Amino acid sequence: MLEHGKRDLVSIEDLSTAEILELFHHADEFRGNLRAWSELCRGAIMATLFFEPSTRTRLSFESAMLRLGGGVITAADEKSTSRAKGESLADTVRVVGGSYADILVVRHPEDGAARVAARYARVPVINGGDGAHEHPTQTLCDLYTLWKEKGRLEGLEVVLCGDLRYSRTIHSFCYALARFGANIVTMPYPGFELPDYVLHRLRRDFGVQTAAASVADLPGIAGSSNAAAYLTASKPHQLALFTNLTNIEVNRIDAIYMTRAQRERHSGEETKNYPRLSRSTLGAAAAKDARIMHPLPRVDEIDYDVDDDPRSVYFRQAELGVPMRMALMAFLLGRIQLRATRPGTSSVSPGIAAGAGLRCSNERCITNNEGVRYLTRDFRLREAEAPPVLSCAYCEREIEARFVGHAQDRVVHRYNSAEARRIQPQHRVYFESEAQAQAAGFACREG
Amino acid sequence: MLEHGKRDLVSIEDLSTAEILELFHHADEFRGNLRAWSELCRGAIMATLFFEPSTRTRLSFESAMLRLGGGVITAADEKSTSRAKGESLADTVRVVGGSYADILVVRHPEDGAARVAARYARVPVINGGDGAHEHPTQTLCDLYTLWKEKGRLEGLEVVLCGDLRYSRTIHSFCYALARFGANIVTMPYPGFELPDYVLHRLRRDFGVQTAAASVADLPGIAGSSNAAAYLTASKPHQLALFTNLTNIEVNRIDAIYMTRAQRERHSGEETKNYPRLSRSTLGAAAAKDARIMHPLPRVDEIDYDVDDDPRSVYFRQAELGVPMRMALMAFLLGRIQLRATRPGTSSVSPGIAAGAGLRCSNERCITNNEGVRYLTRDFRLREAEAPPVLSCAYCEREIEARFVGHAQDRVVHRYNSAEARRIQPQHRVYFESEAQAQAAGFACREG
Amino acid sequence: MLEHGKRDLVSIEDLSTAEILELFHHADEFRGNLRAWSELCRGAIMATLFFEPSTRTRLSFESAMLRLGGGVITAADEKSTSRAKGESLADTVRVVGGSYADILVVRHPEDGAARVAARYARVPVINGGDGAHEHPTQTLCDLYTLWKEKGRLEGLEVVLCGDLRYSRTIHSFCYALARFGANIVTMPYPGFELPDYVLHRLRRDFGVQTAAASVADLPGIAGSSNAAAYLTASKPHQLALFTNLTNIEVNRIDAIYMTRAQRERHSGEETKNYPRLSRSTLGAAAAKDARIMHPLPRVDEIDYDVDDDPRSVYFRQAELGVPMRMALMAFLLGRIQLRATRPGTSSVSPGIAAGAGLRCSNERCITNNEGVRYLTRDFRLREAEAPPVLSCAYCEREIEARFVGHAQDRVVHRYNSAEARRIQPQHRVYFESEAQAQAAGFACREG
Repeated sequence: MLEHGKRDLVSIEDLSTAEILELFHHADEFRGNLRAWSELCRGAIMATLFFEPSTRTRLSFESAMLRLGGGVITAADEKSTSRAKGESLADTVRVVGGSYADILVVRHPEDGAARVAARYARVPVINGGDGAHEHPTQTLCDLYTLWKEKGRLEGLEVVLCGDLRYSRTIHSFCYALARFGANIVTMPYPGFELPDYVLHRLRRDFGVQTAAASVADLPGIAGSSNAAAYLTASKPHQLALFTNLTNIEVNRIDAIYMTRAQRERHSGEETKNYPRLSRSTLGAAAAKDARIMHPLPRVDEIDYDVDDDPRSVYFRQAELGVPMRMALMAFLLGRIQLRATRPGTSSVSPGIAAGAGLRCSNERCITNNEGVRYLTRDFRLREAEAPPVLSCAYCEREIEARFVGHAQDRVVHRYNSAEARRIQPQHRVYFESEAQAQAAGFACREG
Repeated sequence: MLEHGKRDLVSIEDLSTAEILELFHHADEFRGNLRAWSELCRGAIMATLFFEPSTRTRLSFESAMLRLGGGVITAADEKSTSRAKGESLADTVRVVGGSYADILVVRHPEDGAARVAARYARVPVINGGDGAHEHPTQTLCDLYTLWKEKGRLEGLEVVLCGDLRYSRTIHSFCYALARFGANIVTMPYPGFELPDYVLHRLRRDFGVQTAAASVADLPGIAGSSNAAAYLTASKPHQLALFTNLTNIEVNRIDAIYMTRAQRERHSGEETKNYPRLSRSTLGAAAAKDARIMHPLPRVDEIDYDVDDDPRSVYFRQAELGVPMRMALMAFLLGRIQLRATRPGTSSVSPGIAAGAGLRCSNERCITNNEGVRYLTRDFRLREAEAPPVLSCAYCEREIEARFVGHAQDRVVHRYNSAEARRIQPQHRVYFESEAQAQAAGFACREG
Repeated sequence: MLEHGKRDLVSIEDLSTAEILELFHHADEFRGNLRAWSELCRGAIMATLFFEPSTRTRLSFESAMLRLGGGVITAADEKSTSRAKGESLADTVRVVGGSYADILVVRHPEDGAARVAARYARVPVINGGDGAHEHPTQTLCDLYTLWKEKGRLEGLEVVLCGDLRYSRTIHSFCYALARFGANIVTMPYPGFELPDYVLHRLRRDFGVQTAAASVADLPGIAGSSNAAAYLTASKPHQLALFTNLTNIEVNRIDAIYMTRAQRERHSGEETKNYPRLSRSTLGAAAAKDARIMHPLPRVDEIDYDVDDDPRSVYFRQAELGVPMRMALMAFLLGRIQLRATRPGTSSVSPGIAAGAGLRCSNERCITNNEGVRYLTRDFRLREAEAPPVLSCAYCEREIEARFVGHAQDRVVHRYNSAEARRIQPQHRVYFESEAQAQAAGFACREG
C-alpha cells in the first residue's frame, strides 16, 4: 500500500464544497463546446474497470475522456476479467494503474471496494459505484443539474421520492444537499424509508433536524406516502419558521428527485404500488417551479407523457454528466488546477491501532469478502463517547464500541467505566463485545 | 419525440438514388488511402448500441469512425446494458445521443427499432440491423461492390441464391437492385423463396415483373432450385426480349449473391441440402464474368477452394464496408456535403390519425414489444383502394384495412361501400375488421 | 492463403536473438516517457480478436496501441463474435485484416490458431496466446524484465516454480532462456513437472543438459519439491564445474519465477499443497539478490506481504509489458526499423508433401478442430533419422514417423530399413503406423 500525492474521488467527501463549486464552473466551460477540448488530456489513458455492469455510467466516463482527447481501455464485464482466475482487486488496480492507464474508474459490487482501489493504485481512482456505499459522480451530476437549474443550492426545497432505503445515489445526495444547506422532504415508498444510519449521520455531521412533513397538494405521490419527513440544516431558527413542528406543510418545491425501485437489491419485496409521477402530480401548485429529476434508468415511476414537460430535467441531468466528468478528470489528471482548498480531514485515514480488535459489521464490506485475504482492518474514531463510534475506513459502516481495552495491560472495560476513562487515547483498543475482546486475548474485569 | 433537421439512415429509402451514387464516389476517395482522413471527423464520437451481437458490423463501423479521426463508445452486449433494469430504447438513445455521442449506430432484435431510435435521438441514427426489417449499410456495401466491379448497376443480371425468405439483407438488396434497374434471378433453397410481401412491394413500388426462369448451365445450384424466378423492371419491352416468357433462359450472370441459412431465425427447419457454390458451379459458361458475393459470415455454402478464384469478391465486399461507412458517417455528421437532392417523400411519416384504430400485425414489431409502454401507433397510407393498405411507420409491415370509419360520426363501413367512399380523407379511420372497429367504439352499419 | 512480406509474431522463434535485444532498447526508449509517442502510429488500427477471455493481455495491448497514437477495435468475447454463426478463424482474420485493422492480436483456445491467423491475414498478426502452444509477448516481457533487472541474460540462474506442466508461459520462457544462455532450476509442484517434449526440445534445439538439483536453503518451496532439476546450456565444461553431477547444489539465484496452478486446464487435480512464496522463503541466503517474478494473475502462491519486498518485480513485469508491446507493434507496423537480421529459418514452413499422410496427434490442435473444414495438413521434418520426427506447422507438436513410403511406388517401409533409406528425399512420405499408410492407399512390404 503506497502513499501518494494524487487525489481520488471515492466519496463525495473527498472534495471540498468550494472545490465542487469550482468544478461546476469548469463543467460549464466544457459544455460550451464539447468538441473543443480534444487536446486537453491528449496522451492520457483512462481505464474503466467494471466488475458490475453499468452501461450508462461507463459510456458517460468514456465519452468524457474521449472529448478531452484521451484514450480509453475497458474491462466491462466481470466474467471476462482475471477475477475468474481469482485475482484480487488490489492486484488488478496495481497492474492496470501501473503503465496501462493514467486514471481508473472502478465499479464493484462490494462496499468499500473503491477505497481499496484508491489505496493500491498509483494513479487517481474514481468511484463509479461500490456496492451500497457511494456513487459520487452521480451525486456531482445531480448537484450540478440542480445548481444550473436554480442558480444556487442553499435553501432549496428538494423532495426525494421512492426507494430511499437501498439507493446509494439517494444517500450520497442527502449528505451533499445537507452540506450545501438545502432542505430535504423525504417521501418514501412505505417500507423504503431512509435508513437510521443515514439520518444519524445527517444529524451528527451536518446538524440536520427532522420533523414530520406533508405535501398535501402533491397528488398521487403524497397519497402513497404516509411517512414524509422534513430534514433541514441545523440552525434552530429555520425550523422555528414553521408554526407546527410536528407536521410541516411544504408549499414550495424546487425539485422532485424520483428513484426507481432498486429491484436487484430487494427482489423479494413488494413494489406494486410504487409511486409514479404523472401529469396530474405536476399540476400541483407547489410543483409549479419544481424540476423533475431522476438518476435513470427509469422503469415506470415517471410517465412518458411527463417527458415533454419543460420541468422534466432528467435527460438534461444525464447530458450534464459528460461535462461534469470532463471537469473532474481534467482536475484529477492535473490538466486543470482548482484554487479552492481541499477538504480539511481527508476521508482516507491511516490505519489506527484502536480498531485492531474490531471486525466490520457490514457483511457486504470488501473487508469481509474478497479483501479478507489481504486487507488489514482499519477503523477511524468518529465519536469518542456515549458510546464510542468507529467507522470502517473502507465502507464507512459505523460500529458502536462499548468496550475499551488497554493495549499493553490487555484488560478490557465497559466504555463508560472509570477504568476505561483512565486509559490514555494512544493505548485504547475498542471492542463491540466482551466476547470479541476475549477472542483477541484480552481479560475482562468488572468495571 | 422531437423533429430535427438531422438525417438518419434507417431504411435504404432514406437516401435518394443520386445520393447513393455520390456516396460511392466519396467512398472511392476514402479508399484511396484509408489512413489519410484522421482529421475529418476529429472531435466527433460514435456510439455503437448493439442489443444483439454482431461483431463484424460493429467492428466495421468502429474502424470507419476511427479512420475518420473520431472516437468510439460501445455497448456491445445486451446483458450489460440498462435494459436489464428495464430501460426503454427511447430513453437509452436520448441519454446516449444527449451529450455522450454525436452519431448512433443501433442494432436491435425488434423490427422497427431503428426508426424509434431515430425519432427519439437528437443526433443522426444509423440502422445496424433491426430484427427482420432492414440492414441498410449492408445493402449500401453490396451495391457499392457491384458498382465498382461492373462499373454500373442498371441492366445487370444478379442471381440471388439460398435463403431468400428470412434474410433481411436479401430483401433490402432486392428493393435497391430494382431501384437501380438491375434484373434479379432468384434461386431459393426450396421452401425459402422470397416472401409474397417482398414481391408485392417490388411490383408496386418499382414496377417489377416476374417470370419463371432457368439457369440451366449453372450446375449444382440450379439443380437444387426448381423455383427460379426472373424479376425485371417494369418496362414491358424488357420482358419482350425473351422468346418464352414462361421460362426465361438466363445466359449471362453478372453476380451470384449467396447467403447462408439464417439458422437463428428458423432453427427447426431442414437445411441439409442447402445449395453450395463450388469450383464446378463456377465453371459454367454463364458464370464466366460473374462476381461471387456473400454478406458473410459464411458457413458451408461456398467451398473454401473458391476463395482464390478471381471472381470471388466476398472478402473485398467486406473490405469496402469501411470506406462506404466512412462516407456515410462523414455525410451524416455534416463533414462532407452531397450535391444530390434528398428523397422526395421521407420515409419518416408524421403520425396520421387514419391509423389510430389499427394495431401492427407484425408480432415482432417494436410497437408490440418493448414499445408497448410508450409508443403511439403510427401508420401511413400506401394504397387508397382495392382494398386500402397502410404500413406501420416503424417496421413497414403492410396491413389491409377493409373497414373505414368516420372519425366524428364513429360509424364504420366496408371500404368499397358507397358510404365509405363518401367519407372525406381527413376524417377516415381505418380498421382491419369489424371487431377491431367495435373495440375502438365505432358502430357497424350495413354498407 | 497468401504469401506476404509482412512479419508476424506467432512464436518467440519468429524473432532473432539480436532482434529481441534491439526491441528491448526501443522499449526502454518508449518507457522513458510513455505519453510522448502519440504520433508514431497515428492512423493505424489494431484489432484485438479474443476468442478466450484475458483482460490483462488485452488491456496491455490496447494501452500500448493508444500510447502509440493508434486506434483500437475489440472483439473480446467469444460469444459475441461471428463464431456463433459458424465462421472460421481464417474468414474472420481475412475480414478484420482486410480494411478494418492494420495489425491483429489473436487469442484463441486451440493450439496453432495464431499460425492460421498469420497465414490468412494480409496484415501482421501477434499471438496473444493460442491454447497450450505459445504466448510469445508474455515471454518477451519476462525476458525484458530480467534483462533490465540483471543487465544481461546469459549465465543467469533462474528458478521456475509451481505448475511447469500446463503453463505455456513457462514452456516458451524455457526455450527463450536456453536460447539466451541462462540456466534453469525447475522446482515443480509434484506431478506438474516440465513435460518430456519440452525437455527433449531443449536438448535438441539448444543443447541443454539436465541434472538433478537441490536448493537446500530455499525453505518452503524446496521442501515441497523433490523433483528439482538443473538445466544448463550445452557446453560440457559448465556442468563440469559442479562436483556432484547427480545433485547440483544451487547457491545463487538470480530470479524465482512463480506460476499459479493452471486450474482451468486441470480442474480435477489436487493443488492443495501448492508451493507458496513467503517472507521466510526470501530470507534464504541464496535468494539475497533474486528477483521474484510472476506472470500474474496470482492466486495464493505469493503472500501479499512479499509485495513490498524490493526484490518483488511482478508488478514491474506487468508494467514493462506496455513499452515492450509498443516496441513490438511499432516494429511490425514498419514505424521503427531494426538493424538486426531476422531469423535464418522462418518457423513458417511451406507445406511439404512428406507429411501428406500424417495427422497431427495433438487433439487440441486447430487442424483437428475448427480447421478441419479448410486447413491442409502441413508438417516440417525436424529430425531425419532414429526415427524421423516431423512437427505440425501449426501447433508444433512433434510426431515420430516410423514408416516411410515412396510417393510414386506407393509402397511403405520401416524407417530404418534399407529400402526406406533408398527413397530419395523428395519422394518420401511419412507415416506413424502401417495402418495409417494403408489407409492412405500404400502397400506394406517386409522391410
